[in-house]
Amino acid sequence: MDPKLLQVFPNPAPQRDYLIEHTHHEFTSLCPMTGHPDFAEITVRYVADKKCVELKSLKLYFHAYRNEGIFFEGATNQICDHLGAVLKPRSLTVIAHWKARGGFTSVITAHHERKPRRTRR
Amino acid sequence: MDPKLLQVFPNPAPQRDYLIEHTHHEFTSLCPMTGHPDFAEITVRYVADKKCVELKSLKLYFHAYRNEGIFFEGATNQICDHLGAVLKPRSLTVIAHWKARGGFTSVITAHHERKPRRTRR
Amino acid sequence: MDPKLLQVFPNPAPQRDYLIEHTHHEFTSLCPMTGHPDFAEITVRYVADKKCVELKSLKLYFHAYRNEGIFFEGATNQICDHLGAVLKPRSLTVIAHWKARGGFTSVITAHHERKPRRTRR
Amino acid sequence: MDPKLLQVFPNPAPQRDYLIEHTHHEFTSLCPMTGHPDFAEITVRYVADKKCVELKSLKLYFHAYRNEGIFFEGATNQICDHLGAVLKPRSLTVIAHWKARGGFTSVITAHHERKPRRTRR
Amino acid sequence: MDPKLLQVFPNPAPQRDYLIEHTHHEFTSLCPMTGHPDFAEITVRYVADKKCVELKSLKLYFHAYRNEGIFFEGATNQICDHLGAVLKPRSLTVIAHWKARGGFTSVITAHHERKPRRTRR
Amino acid sequence: MDPKLLQVFPNPAPQRDYLIEHTHHEFTSLCPMTGHPDFAEITVRYVADKKCVELKSLKLYFHAYRNEGIFFEGATNQICDHLGAVLKPRSLTVIAHWKARGGFTSVITAHHERKPRRTRR
Amino acid sequence: MDPKLLQVFPNPAPQRDYLIEHTHHEFTSLCPMTGHPDFAEITVRYVADKKCVELKSLKLYFHAYRNEGIFFEGATNQICDHLGAVLKPRSLTVIAHWKARGGFTSVITAHHERKPRRTRR
Amino acid sequence: MDPKLLQVFPNPAPQRDYLIEHTHHEFTSLCPMTGHPDFAEITVRYVADKKCVELKSLKLYFHAYRNEGIFFEGATNQICDHLGAVLKPRSLTVIAHWKARGGFTSVITAHHERKPRRTRR
Amino acid sequence: MDPKLLQVFPNPAPQRDYLIEHTHHEFTSLCPMTGHPDFAEITVRYVADKKCVELKSLKLYFHAYRNEGIFFEGATNQICDHLGAVLKPRSLTVIAHWKARGGFTSVITAHHERKPRRTRR
Amino acid sequence: MDPKLLQVFPNPAPQRDYLIEHTHHEFTSLCPMTGHPDFAEITVRYVADKKCVELKSLKLYFHAYRNEGIFFEGATNQICDHLGAVLKPRSLTVIAHWKARGGFTSVITAHHERKPRRTRR
Repeated sequence: MDPKLLQVFPNPAPQRDYLIEHTHHEFTSLCPMTGHPDFAEITVRYVADKKCVELKSLKLYFHAYRNEGIFFEGATNQICDHLGAVLKPRSLTVIAHWKARGGFTSVITAHHERKPRRTRR
Repeated sequence: MDPKLLQVFPNPAPQRDYLIEHTHHEFTSLCPMTGHPDFAEITVRYVADKKCVELKSLKLYFHAYRNEGIFFEGATNQICDHLGAVLKPRSLTVIAHWKARGGFTSVITAHHERKPRRTRR
Repeated sequence: MDPKLLQVFPNPAPQRDYLIEHTHHEFTSLCPMTGHPDFAEITVRYVADKKCVELKSLKLYFHAYRNEGIFFEGATNQICDHLGAVLKPRSLTVIAHWKARGGFTSVITAHHERKPRRTRR
Repeated sequence: MDPKLLQVFPNPAPQRDYLIEHTHHEFTSLCPMTGHPDFAEITVRYVADKKCVELKSLKLYFHAYRNEGIFFEGATNQICDHLGAVLKPRSLTVIAHWKARGGFTSVITAHHERKPRRTRR
Repeated sequence: MDPKLLQVFPNPAPQRDYLIEHTHHEFTSLCPMTGHPDFAEITVRYVADKKCVELKSLKLYFHAYRNEGIFFEGATNQICDHLGAVLKPRSLTVIAHWKARGGFTSVITAHHERKPRRTRR
Repeated sequence: MDPKLLQVFPNPAPQRDYLIEHTHHEFTSLCPMTGHPDFAEITVRYVADKKCVELKSLKLYFHAYRNEGIFFEGATNQICDHLGAVLKPRSLTVIAHWKARGGFTSVITAHHERKPRRTRR
Repeated sequence: MDPKLLQVFPNPAPQRDYLIEHTHHEFTSLCPMTGHPDFAEITVRYVADKKCVELKSLKLYFHAYRNEGIFFEGATNQICDHLGAVLKPRSLTVIAHWKARGGFTSVITAHHERKPRRTRR
Repeated sequence: MDPKLLQVFPNPAPQRDYLIEHTHHEFTSLCPMTGHPDFAEITVRYVADKKCVELKSLKLYFHAYRNEGIFFEGATNQICDHLGAVLKPRSLTVIAHWKARGGFTSVITAHHERKPRRTRR
Repeated sequence: MDPKLLQVFPNPAPQRDYLIEHTHHEFTSLCPMTGHPDFAEITVRYVADKKCVELKSLKLYFHAYRNEGIFFEGATNQICDHLGAVLKPRSLTVIAHWKARGGFTSVITAHHERKPRRTRR
Repeated sequence: MDPKLLQVFPNPAPQRDYLIEHTHHEFTSLCPMTGHPDFAEITVRYVADKKCVELKSLKLYFHAYRNEGIFFEGATNQICDHLGAVLKPRSLTVIAHWKARGGFTSVITAHHERKPRRTRR
């Protein structure tokens, strides 16, 4: 997946901490074990610092997962890493709601932290 | 957009911090890139100080966006700025739920602060 | 509006802080500007001290607004004042959900405080 | 109402504070004023100490209200008192959602406290 | 029930505290008193440390309850114990929503704690 | 059950075939086998001829089932027979939605016919 | 009630049988027995011949019932008669959904017929 | 599966063609290919002739499928055949809503006919 | 409004009568009396003969109503006329659900007929 | 698209006309104009003659559309043609609900007919 697909534009209100939330209802990737399609609804929620993500480029970035084999936990963390690196936001959360697979639904929620910590405790 | 469209009346209970919330279900503006219409549900939630916004004037103020080209982030912050300047409220939040566009829905949430800060941290 | 319509009975469990919430689904009053009917769902939520409000008298008190011209903000605060004066509750909140009027819905939420403050800050 | 209807069994995991919540969807009693039936959905939420309430006995305890005349506030507090006395739980909340009566719905929420206080403040 | 059915894989993002939540919509076991089937929706919510639970093995582990006689409180705590022992997670909650039985629904919520405490207070 | 509880008033528009439908949301009776309470939502739908059923008397008639032991099929047919005898309507249907009992819900639908037929075919 | 409140305008497409349906969500009148307010949602569905009903006048006509004592069956038939007389439509149905009253909801449905028949059969 | 589990009782209103509908919300069987559990909601809708099915026996008959391997189409037709043979109803329909399996939901609907026809046309 | 905005493409399956239904969720026009915006959800349901309407052109055609003053009845019939003239479909229905205006919602349903009839009867 | 992906098995109840309905909730293909993904929920409803479609093969057949560029009308008709050719069913309907695209949702419904007709009338 290429994070260079993500385009940005200058935050129009950098003096204010306001919340931006984009939910993509049509995310799909492939299970790396079986090759079967997975479907998710992905929410990107962030407080911009200098940059905002351009919505059409975010769509194309998500479309690029269509034929990628990737696990739920891996995809969610990778999207969080890519957006964190590109936007350098004041805060960022990525929430992925994975649809029914074998009687299960799953939700993975990752927060971006400026300096990743090592294992806690 | 002309904030002078916004009419006020004296707060009938200034001795009490009570919450007023108006949700407009029929906001529409234009995408400045494509000219296509955008639709949103906009909530104005505030604690009045001396002034309350008159509901019919708020409707006309929102109607005035009908043929304006403006981005999601820009519109939400501008509405927050205009209402903050006119009402000088004890607190104010503007929440805009933008409807489906290219498989996405978006929510922008801006809090009014009395003295805008510069970029944090 | 006559707060004397409100009847009370002794709190059956004054040793306990428990929450009582009555929601009236059929409140209606008139717009003082246009004379058109307004409709609301009104929730009274309180912790009783010595007195509880009798439910049938609360209904008749609300019915008495049927042909009164009163604004959203005024009605909500007045109900809160009347119940506060009659019940002298440990705490009290009145929440009025006003139904669709010109593309808007509104919610007004007032908390009763034992000693009303003057304007803050 | 006879709290002896309530049967208990030993808490299978007393070393852990875990939450148990039973909701009875078919509670019915009588209005002591009019004799008309009232209907409620009653939730019992507690952290067990040594004892758990046996579900079938809880059902029979609730059925025993079927022909009792009792007010909303009274029934909710009495259920809370009975369960508190029988279970001696680490914590306990009883929430009763009373169905539509004269355009109203009501919710009464009582927390069990180990040593009932006298009136506060 | 055999916790060895639970397979794990290495946490792909151990440097981050992110939340994983799997909900199984098709849990069924038997009532140990009557032999009648019980049905539940079970949510496993955890922050992984070194290991994540493999989803297919979790499904097979849940399927193994199909013909087991076990009480609501016992099943929920046992699942929590098994997952805690296998995953050694940073945190873990198991929530079981048991479906209608005799006019009741029940929810049991257990938190895994690293060192089980004795009875509190 | 006493059909004499049912009061009538003259049909105010006998020149027109119009449909009257009353749904009682709070019907309850007892299972004749176990004595456990049953709950139903009962719809009475009819085209009046000379008489309409008075709503308050219909409520009292339904309340009279509160402590009666009667099967689903029997209660529905008996209500249909009683209303048919009292109203002599142009047409009449009684629909009873019985709530969850042992994992089942049931709906019994009986049409009143002026001259009951013997077994068909 | 004065049917002269109902204003009409010429049907803009008389060559076509098309269906017009207006639903008023805020109808309220009074019970002639108790004086208590009743609430309904009223649907007017018709195929216009030469005339259409003007929507604002229909609103004012419905508002005029606000302080009238009238039964469910009477109000529904009277509205049907008034609209039938004023519009002389190709067909007309009035459906009134009366809200909860004593555990009941009611629906009254009246069809307008050009020449009212006497009692059938 | 043993149709002898199905108990009957005499139709209490054989002079009338009335509709009986029982929906079981907790049907489960096994996939004969994979051994994985399948879940369905099964509706039995019939007009009784001389016999009605006893509800508790119907529950036990459905429970007996719990560990049977059977296809959707086979289970639905077999239930229809068994009930048709035992009840000899005036009419009978069995509708099985099978829950999500591999991104699919399925509904199988079988009507009982007194004399099974050979292939049509 | 210019029906030339409507583009067509050849029906890919003219040998079959199949149903095509497009619902536009974001239609908006202006009230010709007050200039206030109206909002509708418009469904176009047709059986194509030789031509299908191209979806993007249908969107632009609907967008062109944005600043037009037109009544509910007029807009619905005009859309039906334009599509009928351009597509010459085997059958066509236009259904417009107009959103809340003064406590009302409205639905206008127009069927296209090949040869418009004069007034019936 | 290769209809040979569709596997069949013998109809287990050919003596009965019963309805089989499979709904696939995760269909996705590409727009042949823009290359953007389209999403649909596709229902296959048929009365089998000699053959039933095997559900896993139907899933794989639908998955094969994942990277195909095809219009709504074309995809729906092609699925209907393929299933009609393979199953030779007594009757068959394919219903495709296409999700939001540019403010529109679409439903295409195609019936299989044994001998395709030429244009009607």
